[in-house]
Amino acid sequence: MSARFSLDRLEYPIIQAPLGGGPSTPALAAAVSAGGGLGFVAAGYRKPEAVREDIRDVRERTDRPFGVNMFVPSPPAAVSERVERYAEALRGEAERYGVALGQPRHDDDRFGEKLELLAEERVAVVSFTSGCPESSVVEELHRAGSAVWTTVTTPAEAIRAERAGADALVVQGVEAGGHRASFDDESAGEIGLLALLQLVAAKVDPPLVATGGIASGRGVAAVLAAGAEAAALGTAFMLTPEAGTSPAHRDAIASDAETALTRAFTGRTARGVVNRFLREHDADAPSAYPEVHHLTAPVRAAARDAGDRDGFHLWAGQAHALAEALPAAELVRRLADDARQALRDALARHGGAAL
Amino acid sequence: MSARFSLDRLEYPIIQAPLGGGPSTPALAAAVSAGGGLGFVAAGYRKPEAVREDIRDVRERTDRPFGVNMFVPSPPAAVSERVERYAEALRGEAERYGVALGQPRHDDDRFGEKLELLAEERVAVVSFTSGCPESSVVEELHRAGSAVWTTVTTPAEAIRAERAGADALVVQGVEAGGHRASFDDESAGEIGLLALLQLVAAKVDPPLVATGGIASGRGVAAVLAAGAEAAALGTAFMLTPEAGTSPAHRDAIASDAETALTRAFTGRTARGVVNRFLREHDADAPSAYPEVHHLTAPVRAAARDAGDRDGFHLWAGQAHALAEALPAAELVRRLADDARQALRDALARHGGAAL
Repeated sequence: MSARFSLDRLEYPIIQAPLGGGPSTPALAAAVSAGGGLGFVAAGYRKPEAVREDIRDVRERTDRPFGVNMFVPSPPAAVSERVERYAEALRGEAERYGVALGQPRHDDDRFGEKLELLAEERVAVVSFTSGCPESSVVEELHRAGSAVWTTVTTPAEAIRAERAGADALVVQGVEAGGHRASFDDESAGEIGLLALLQLVAAKVDPPLVATGGIASGRGVAAVLAAGAEAAALGTAFMLTPEAGTSPAHRDAIASDAETALTRAFTGRTARGVVNRFLREHDADAPSAYPEVHHLTAPVRAAARDAGDRDGFHLWAGQAHALAEALPAAELVRRLADDARQALRDALARHGGAAL
Repeated sequence: MSARFSLDRLEYPIIQAPLGGGPSTPALAAAVSAGGGLGFVAAGYRKPEAVREDIRDVRERTDRPFGVNMFVPSPPAAVSERVERYAEALRGEAERYGVALGQPRHDDDRFGEKLELLAEERVAVVSFTSGCPESSVVEELHRAGSAVWTTVTTPAEAIRAERAGADALVVQGVEAGGHRASFDDESAGEIGLLALLQLVAAKVDPPLVATGGIASGRGVAAVLAAGAEAAALGTAFMLTPEAGTSPAHRDAIASDAETALTRAFTGRTARGVVNRFLREHDADAPSAYPEVHHLTAPVRAAARDAGDRDGFHLWAGQAHALAEALPAAELVRRLADDARQALRDALARHGGAAL
């Protein structure tokens, strides 16, 4: 048990957020871990076999610890009529991109199979989003030697995650790109990262990893000063050469464009750069994940393949315009160096007799 | 000119946000300034004579610098039909509290008169919210020896404020309680404080004051590490004995209740603790300030006087549950001490050879 991964073993307090749906690659996770941070493999909505391949691929590239992120499955949405109406509203998109809409089916993402796989592979960290893993799941992963991290968006979720046995909490502010990690999409919290860190720290004991809108060494320094043990950055790694981010998505991230929260693409609240699809369908989209994810998948794949940034999900956090196209290991080092300097500067300005 | 107030003259990097509409008092502003921070008098929607009295009252209590905050008037809203429909929707509220609705009139808050008064009174800092003061206004205040701060909620607003000559920018995150300071309520930014600080610092040169959801020394430390020169706290001062916060409002702040953004109370986007009035009228409320402010004022005053927290605006930032009922000067000192300790802790954990 004492061998379980803990955050103080990191050379740099920099974590690569899991980045499901394309940008995540074994090369990126390995580069971040080899560079002194902690890389993550995205397991959500990928086949168990593919996840196992990724884990082995990372291990061929580095012997440093890394993590795997899981989506906690939601119960089936009792909203089939609203999903059907949404499918009607999306007919024009299917025509535009010359594809058929997907079947809006429910499934559990083969959650049990993936847990078995993780128990076998014994990775350093297994993190969860979009729900609280049950104590039995946490215990099973502990027996396999893995640390368990649960992502939270409210103080109430933090309390539940601590009770279920999480070793650390990933505190996700509303600034974050991609899916909100809320346990219940219908009542998703919208608390800014800095407020949330203070509120959560007042309620629970486990170490905290801060995520959402961190894009610079100063941002890293800020969350460390707020008491987090490490910063997890997602969008900031999406322009690295190791990331699998599509060219149209890279352009959107490098722009000054606004972001918004929407269920239009997947039926679960997520933040992306505002584009035509988001503007036209946001108001109609029901809370129904993964039904809407499957429904829109062919359209989004076709738009992405066509390089049309108006037709697919451009996940991005609020500070996306600050992302830099550096090699991942260099970015880890730069963020850590800049963070240390920012802490020193702040203490020099405010840490003397006066403060 | 060189005598103009600058942030490095503060003993502690702690500013009391202006807190218009009741909580602000000369006693609070004076206690914060005398305690080594910077207190503020709220001038928005108060008579010029009352503002002058407050300024003189603060000066009788302390000879330390303090600031006055102004609302920049909006052009008349071209939405009279929507305001009329909203007045219809509020009929039940007027009946419930036994008052008549106010006249939904437009006015400029006697902006010009207040500027003349400020030019005479020569206070250390004049800050602006809800718009960008014109260069001529900034120059007039500079001639009076006042530093001019403009509140911004997006990088684009920061660029405009810098061009208009602001000496410092108050960077307001979406976490903040009370009115959003956005230049245009119809396109109010919703960027979290930490993301916004990083984005703004990349675009402009003036020193930054961070505000929104800061409620502890760790929160102060975080924004200093992010590069801000000082932290402005609003809700955190609302439980102090010097504040004029009503008892029902104090109860709401001390609770764990959720907050939300709404135009229901004033016709301008603002964050408050969710209550019945907010839930029932949020969807109907137009963007029309100060028309809706005047329309609802009698209802809100009656509810507040009756101690009914379901009938008036419970302005509060997202970290309100962390506010403490300490004397203001003690709170300033505690925040500064805790912030210094938080920076030292972060540097001790992450500033060694490893980081």
